[in-house]
Order: sequence, then structure tokens, then C-alpha cells
Amino acid sequence: MKHCIHIFAVLLFVISGSLCLAQTEQSNAKEDFKPAATNQPGKEFPKVNSEGRVRARISAPEAKRVQLDIGAVKYDLTKDENGVWTGDSNPQDEGFHYYQLWIDGAAVPDPNSLYFYGAMRRGSGIEIPAHDQEFYALKNVPHGQIRKILFYSESTDTVRRAFVYTPPGYDQDMTNRYPVLYLQHGWGENETSWPKQGKVNLIMDNLIAEDIANPFIIVMAYGMTNEGGMGGLRNFDIQPFQTVLIDELIPYIDTHFRTLTDQPHRAMAGLSMGGFETRLITLKNLDIFSHIGLFSGGSITPDDVENTPGFKEKVKLVFVSYGSRELDRGRGWGGDPRENTKALKEAGINAHFYVSPNTAHEWQSWRRSLYELAPLLFQD
Amino acid sequence: MKHCIHIFAVLLFVISGSLCLAQTEQSNAKEDFKPAATNQPGKEFPKVNSEGRVRARISAPEAKRVQLDIGAVKYDLTKDENGVWTGDSNPQDEGFHYYQLWIDGAAVPDPNSLYFYGAMRRGSGIEIPAHDQEFYALKNVPHGQIRKILFYSESTDTVRRAFVYTPPGYDQDMTNRYPVLYLQHGWGENETSWPKQGKVNLIMDNLIAEDIANPFIIVMAYGMTNEGGMGGLRNFDIQPFQTVLIDELIPYIDTHFRTLTDQPHRAMAGLSMGGFETRLITLKNLDIFSHIGLFSGGSITPDDVENTPGFKEKVKLVFVSYGSRELDRGRGWGGDPRENTKALKEAGINAHFYVSPNTAHEWQSWRRSLYELAPLLFQD
Repeated sequence: MKHCIHIFAVLLFVISGSLCLAQTEQSNAKEDFKPAATNQPGKEFPKVNSEGRVRARISAPEAKRVQLDIGAVKYDLTKDENGVWTGDSNPQDEGFHYYQLWIDGAAVPDPNSLYFYGAMRRGSGIEIPAHDQEFYALKNVPHGQIRKILFYSESTDTVRRAFVYTPPGYDQDMTNRYPVLYLQHGWGENETSWPKQGKVNLIMDNLIAEDIANPFIIVMAYGMTNEGGMGGLRNFDIQPFQTVLIDELIPYIDTHFRTLTDQPHRAMAGLSMGGFETRLITLKNLDIFSHIGLFSGGSITPDDVENTPGFKEKVKLVFVSYGSRELDRGRGWGGDPRENTKALKEAGINAHFYVSPNTAHEWQSWRRSLYELAPLLFQD
Repeated sequence: MKHCIHIFAVLLFVISGSLCLAQTEQSNAKEDFKPAATNQPGKEFPKVNSEGRVRARISAPEAKRVQLDIGAVKYDLTKDENGVWTGDSNPQDEGFHYYQLWIDGAAVPDPNSLYFYGAMRRGSGIEIPAHDQEFYALKNVPHGQIRKILFYSESTDTVRRAFVYTPPGYDQDMTNRYPVLYLQHGWGENETSWPKQGKVNLIMDNLIAEDIANPFIIVMAYGMTNEGGMGGLRNFDIQPFQTVLIDELIPYIDTHFRTLTDQPHRAMAGLSMGGFETRLITLKNLDIFSHIGLFSGGSITPDDVENTPGFKEKVKLVFVSYGSRELDRGRGWGGDPRENTKALKEAGINAHFYVSPNTAHEWQSWRRSLYELAPLLFQD
């Protein structure tokens, strides 16, 4: 359970922002702020400048203190004569970040932003423009669909929701069948996280339009990682989710979509806790999955290969990735993931290691990881 | 433009809740509160009791005043020794309502609720259990899909989003083709409103499971009603949306879905401003649409029939509905809608009038309207 405890520690860090002290540092911001792409329609604030600073604004005429809470730091806002509070953050890494406002001790979503599920709640998110944002930009190319499906799960006796990406052309050629990637979110997130902040459809549409990746179906289901809250994670049991995935969801997908249903055409990948789930489930089910992707969520070790009968014959791809800033911390989840992946490659396994430059345990790392993984999938 | 001005007035009423005075009345609430169905996962508050009262709660230790703003009234919350504020609303009508919190003069979403787009913003919504809620309950029946599509619009030079409901079985029998209903939201809302607070997929799944309605496709696109804010509505021009709908979206749907593409198998309906749009567009395009539904959005008058060549031959159905509380106000949008519909029926037109009991200009009226309309569609 070493991996699990480490993931737990990193996540605690992410959500503990509210415990940090308020900053009073003056902002020497470059005055080229523009409305964030993640704002609600017609909302001017929050804005982002070319340094990646976030400028938030809210009217709260009777408040004593208003703060912007982003990147685990709280920044004091300043009130003007009309009761409108404004303030800047320090520069943020490029990509997507969760944030919130504090008004006289109440933690609330910013009423100007769109909302995203993460850190165990639906709340504000903000997009910091990235140098490579073209790969997930909305373009005039053929677009696939994101489909919300509802399927009955006998093991939990619930009707469960999942999202399915079908690639462009899926509804035109009715004879074609497609491989499937099962793609998991992290702890504190849910099945909406990849379709929304993950921008999974735009990444795939653009890759397919440029003929960089083959079209395939992507299924995004709730990994049941939040049950019991933080305490529950220490005792996380993979079995309930594995049952839903293997015994219920996969058969539903294979009967309701035009899939290729054999092992060589089924992959599983996930981020953080979803990577941990991917590792646990694929290693025990190599007759079902042939491609394995772990984003900021551990690695496959030479010991794993040795202890898993048939690994070398059955596994077509191992893909391991991290954000450079989390890797720099030197945390070895089950040993150094770069070294582990290198050892697999030297042992003749099709293993890839990717590092997302200048990003941490966050969505820009995982968007890039999907962008790097997709062209490697289903190449046989 | 008489209809337009009236709709405008009603909407002003809906969003002017923030101007009302605070209530200090003590709540004599029945103590059978339960967490609302619209809460975020695991959140206990807000709660609703059997009288339809809403009890909100938020921690705001440093705040001077916290209010719950629902149904155009603000209710003061009371602070306890831990800085947690709690308070009740008066009983609300059954069904779905938008609401927000005020914290020392800042209007913010309740961090405990799910969020819905309406009143020109994404914010909190709450479900008051209804005596007839079974018709939109999530059940273990065959489920259709809600699909997010992205289509290029030449007239606006944008890639636009719409949602498409495909009925259960759509992906099983590849030879079947389906009629299509184009279904519009109201002013201040968008294309997410019918799939989310409208519960369009659950209403249809349940109707189809009980064999009360025939399966058909439903397309929900943004009606461009919010452009320019409230001021812009007075000068609302139907042409830009009509171009997107008729020249761009319908051809996209007819090439990307297995539709029946002739006039007898295409319907349009909408609520409030979306009803107004439906009336304008269908009357000018009776070679494209055969079924017309207006929910809280005016009526078809005998004059309309007289002034529209071919109306009697081309129109298979006129459906007009209102919430009883808005009808009681006696507002005649283009004359009394009940009398207008009766006159159409007497003139031999297949015209139906429905009144949603004990609801106003709100989603419970419109959910019920769809439930009543669906079995009447495409019966030839």
C-alpha cells in the first residue's frame, strides 16, 4: 500500500490551501489582463495576464475581508469606494487550476466562473493560457461526441452515469468497429472531470484531424475513489469499482457501442488515484486489457512484471507520465518511475516515459499525457 | 412585438428577487427536513421539508449578515456560536427553483448545491419534491443518451454546441430512423437547461418505457436569446438564430443522425422566450415543421392561422401550455391563450391546451408540458 499513502499525501497538500496564511504582498502585475476562457458567458472577471497572474473581482459592500484562494495560497483583495473587491494572485503554472473565494470566512465559488468537479466539490476553475494550448483548442475540424450514458449496476443496485467519447465519423460508417480506452479521473474528482477540465474530446478531435492518432472510443466512469472521504482512502478497496468496471460497464459498452471486444483492443489509463486503480485492475486482468497508462499515479515495476504471469506476452504498451514539478520533488512511488520504465524497456517491453514540462500534479500534465498516449494506442 | 414585451416583463419579475426586502419572520417549520436531491454528493444542506421550505446553512464566522435568496424573497439566516449560519424560506412550489446566498452584500452560489444555467448565470438550484415526481425519476429502465455535439456555423463563424437526446435502442437497430423535436430553452437560459433542470432524458426514457410516447430524437441548441442582455431583448431579432437553426443545425442533424427528414416528422417547441421563437420560426417555415409547442410562451391565434397560407394543411399539432399561477394572473399574451387554442380546435385544427397545476413560470410547468406534449407528437 506504499503507493496509496504517497498519493494520499500529495492530495492532502492540494486541498490544504485553505490553511495557508493570507498574503499581503503587493502585486507588480503586468497590465495585460484578459478575461479567462473559463468565465461564464459575458463575465469580464476573473482575468489572467501574460505572467499567469489571476485577478479576481467581486462586489461585497458589507464585507470585512475577501480573499482569492488559488494554488494553496490565499491572496487578500482590496475594496474600492463602491464596495467592489479586487486582487491578484502570484503567477500560476499554465493550464487549469481549481480556486475559490473567501468572504468573511465563508468559502464560496466565484459567481463569475464556470464550475468543475474536483477536490471533492463542484467549484470554480480557471484556465491559464498555455504555450501549447492549440492541442486542446476548439477548432473547425470534424468533431466527435461526448455522450452521457446511464447503465444499471447490479452489484451496487444503482443506475450509474458514465461519459463516452465517440470519434468523428462514428455515426457515418455503421460497419466500423473501434478499440476502447477506459480513462479514470483522480481522487476528489468524478466522471465529469475528463470530459470537462480534461478536454478529452478536443484533444482527440484534433489528434484525429491531423492523423496523429487512430480513432477510438473513450469511456469515463466514476472510480468510486471518494467514498468515505479522506479517511476512507487509506482503506481503499479496489474490488467494488473493479466489479462495476469489469462485470457491468464493459459488457454494457460492448453491447451498446460498436466496439472491438478483444483484449488487444482494450486499454485502461488513469491519473493519480485513477492510475493506482489502473495498475491494480490491469495487472489482475491481463486477459481483458492490453494497454496500460499511468499519469502521475505510480509505475509498473520489474517486480510487477515478474509477479504477473504472461505480462510480456499480453501487454502491448506501458505508458508512465508525470508533471516535471512533482517528479522534481524526488518522490518515488514504488521506486523511481523513470528508472522502472527504463528497466521495462530494457526487458523488451514497449514502455514509454513522458514528463510534462513545468507542471505539477494538475490537469495540464494529464491533458498532455493523454495527447502523448493516444498516438501510441492500438498500433498493432 | 406585443408578445415580446410581455415576456420581457415576466422575466424582469423573476430576476428582480434581489431587490426585495429581507424577511425577519420566524419560521414555524415542520421538522422533517431532508437533503435536497440537487445537493452536491455528500452534502447535507440545503434541506427541504414536506411543506416545501428550504433550510440553507453555511459557515461564515466573520460575516455580519447572511441571506437565502429564493422565489424573489431574501430570508435572513441566524449565526450560531461556531459561526455557522442557518435559516428557512417560506414554502416553495414543488419542482425546481434557482436560488443564491448573500454574504455581507456579495451574491454567491451556495457551495453545497449543484449548478444550473438560468437567469443569465450558472448558479444554485434546488429541487422541491413534487407529488408527480415519478415521471422524471431515474429508474431502472432502458435509457437513451444525451450527446454533446459541436457543429460549425458559417453564419456566425463559430463552432457551436448543442445537445441531442437519442432514445433507448437508437444504437441497437441501425436501420431505424426517427422523427426530431427541436426544443428551446427560455431567456437567460441556454442549451444545458433542458438536459439538466429540464430532465428531458428521464422524462422521455420513462414515457418510452411505459409505451406512452413513441421514441424520437430531441435537439437542444442555444436560442441566442441572451445576446446584449436585458436591453437587447426589446430589439430581439429572430433572424440570426433562425439561420443557425434552419440552414446549419437541421442539415447537420439530418446528416449525423438517423432522422426522418420530411416535414411531417419535424417538430419545434420552446418555453417562454423559446416559445416566442418557436412561434416566429414555425409560422414562417411550415414546409419544415409540422408540430408546434408553446410552453408559457404565447399562443397561436385565429389571426395567425388566417395570415399563414397552408396552415390548416401543414400543421399536424398545436400544443399550448401554462403554469396555473401565471395563467391566474390573467396575462393575455396575444389574447387569452386558452380561448385562442379553443378557437383553433373549433376550426378543425389538432390543438391542445394544458395547465400545470399550482406552478408558475418555472421548470415544473415545462417538465409537465413536455410530458403532456410527447405522446401527442408524430402520431400519423
